Amino acid sequence: MIIPVKMKDADYDIVLERGALKKVGEYINIKDNKVLIVTDSGVPEEYAQTVAASFGHSFIHIFPEGEGSKNFETYQGILQSLLTSGFNRKDSVIAVGGGVTGDMAGFAAATYMRGIDFYNIPTTLLSQVDSSIGGKTGIDFCSVKNIVGAFYQPKKVIIDPDVLNTLSDRQIANGLAESIKMGITGDKELFEIFKDKNYKEKNEEIIRRSLLVKRSVVEEDEKEAGLRRVLNFGHTLGHAIESAVGLGTLYHGECVGLGMLPMCGENIREQVKAALENVGLPTSFDYDKEAAYDALTHDKKSGSKSTVTVVKCNEIGSFTFETVPTEELKALL
Amino acid sequence: MIIPVKMKDADYDIVLERGALKKVGEYINIKDNKVLIVTDSGVPEEYAQTVAASFGHSFIHIFPEGEGSKNFETYQGILQSLLTSGFNRKDSVIAVGGGVTGDMAGFAAATYMRGIDFYNIPTTLLSQVDSSIGGKTGIDFCSVKNIVGAFYQPKKVIIDPDVLNTLSDRQIANGLAESIKMGITGDKELFEIFKDKNYKEKNEEIIRRSLLVKRSVVEEDEKEAGLRRVLNFGHTLGHAIESAVGLGTLYHGECVGLGMLPMCGENIREQVKAALENVGLPTSFDYDKEAAYDALTHDKKSGSKSTVTVVKCNEIGSFTFETVPTEELKALL
Repeated sequence: MIIPVKMKDADYDIVLERGALKKVGEYINIKDNKVLIVTDSGVPEEYAQTVAASFGHSFIHIFPEGEGSKNFETYQGILQSLLTSGFNRKDSVIAVGGGVTGDMAGFAAATYMRGIDFYNIPTTLLSQVDSSIGGKTGIDFCSVKNIVGAFYQPKKVIIDPDVLNTLSDRQIANGLAESIKMGITGDKELFEIFKDKNYKEKNEEIIRRSLLVKRSVVEEDEKEAGLRRVLNFGHTLGHAIESAVGLGTLYHGECVGLGMLPMCGENIREQVKAALENVGLPTSFDYDKEAAYDALTHDKKSGSKSTVTVVKCNEIGSFTFETVPTEELKALL
Repeated sequence: MIIPVKMKDADYDIVLERGALKKVGEYINIKDNKVLIVTDSGVPEEYAQTVAASFGHSFIHIFPEGEGSKNFETYQGILQSLLTSGFNRKDSVIAVGGGVTGDMAGFAAATYMRGIDFYNIPTTLLSQVDSSIGGKTGIDFCSVKNIVGAFYQPKKVIIDPDVLNTLSDRQIANGLAESIKMGITGDKELFEIFKDKNYKEKNEEIIRRSLLVKRSVVEEDEKEAGLRRVLNFGHTLGHAIESAVGLGTLYHGECVGLGMLPMCGENIREQVKAALENVGLPTSFDYDKEAAYDALTHDKKSGSKSTVTVVKCNEIGSFTFETVPTEELKALL
């Protein structure tokens, strides 16, 4: 299945197909030019090798997995691989991995020789339903997440649901949190899937519907000037909780799940809680509430703040923006 | 005088006006947001201070002058200034200086929070007639010039010819080389100015006409896919000479002047030579021809090459592209 995405100055297709990884050469037409496949140590090695085998002049760059690699060192390492292999403006970068890999490879592609072609093959559910489309790339700097980066659209995104078979249940649930978010704010039918015990059989349907919600948002608001902030549903409190528990305790999706619940109106909160539990996401967690509130009020990007705009949801499939005093959010942590 | 520039997804104005530096607040409407003024140690300090005084919330970032500063260290230093001063997406960066300053400030603005507003106030003739428009930003990496960067359009370019008064004759001539280039390839009347001893009285006219030539080229070919390479007239041999003589011997414009001569047809070579001499540019120089040829054939960006596309000129005001064996260029060094 092909899902076309229309951005202001770059249209591209998302290919969603079981077994697509083995057919990458059919979808990416690179001819005689060079390809750098960027992957991380957490991704099964055969994925990058399968992709590499599809092209005549391919190179593989592997960096250590994890958010800790989202820095200038990894970025410069990729640039150096491009340079030492003599890449020019007609050559390409392909990311094979999760969100961190897509971010790093995408930013390197966006800035090497002022921009070369970038393809993304997301291999985690989280990146398949969320981070691989929208054109955001970014690296962390001075302990601030994604503070440096570019909006840079891929030439194509290739999603193979078969690669999810190697992920743990917890990693799958981590990605489903974002799908549940898209369901709550924009697609009632998508949300209904998560009420059912058999949701695992509907992977493709979940990915497809999540992509359609995300596409409609990013097409409307490419540079995150307004509407795109709906994607932050659950993230205001979620990021605060993530910051309070520290790296390696809870997954991003788990924190987002915890952050969504207080933003749901009374009449839908129980069914959201049931959906989270159904896919194995926590609905409560013991964290340092003072530390979380501190993270909420002292944003490293914008200094201290007394109000914040949050996304609230009172009915499945719709949302509202509300600017509230940060003080008011304290009670919700 | 206002010169509008129409790029694919960003139109902007060039303001060309004597004394504009003191009136920056009239041309840049920033309201209550923050401004980081990026300048280098070679630019008279009062320029940055004059600009800073025009805004309510301004900060000044100074880095050491010279091409040697065009690196990741300087870039990260600017990002850090933005971060520690709590800049957000609505804030701006203003470059006050030459080409290196515009490149560094522009790339930082292009990538901080995935892009914030960028204004350019070029203070050398070279940057006023050439590098300040076209949207190219870039830094050097692993000894390769401009290998990392972005195409990022400024919101406005403000050119004050009065600031040229503090430049030496040699610095002025350095900029004039690019204007002579624009004249030869695209504007006969501009070229005529340089035949006259009184060319110095026509600074504004020279800048205006150079900008019009450059604008027509970059509007047509924003991402340097074809036509824009006409701006490389004199640069193929020029870069080779620059590489052979090493940093600090000849200025960039001086090398470009030397590189233009062999690319001119017999019938115009004498008048081009006379124009270069008239503005004080060298028309011959003793450099290591083997080293220059080596630089020509071993491009760090694309490996070794046996042919190269050069710009040739047989009539003032027009040009042709020619792909020639590098061997053939050896005789021209």
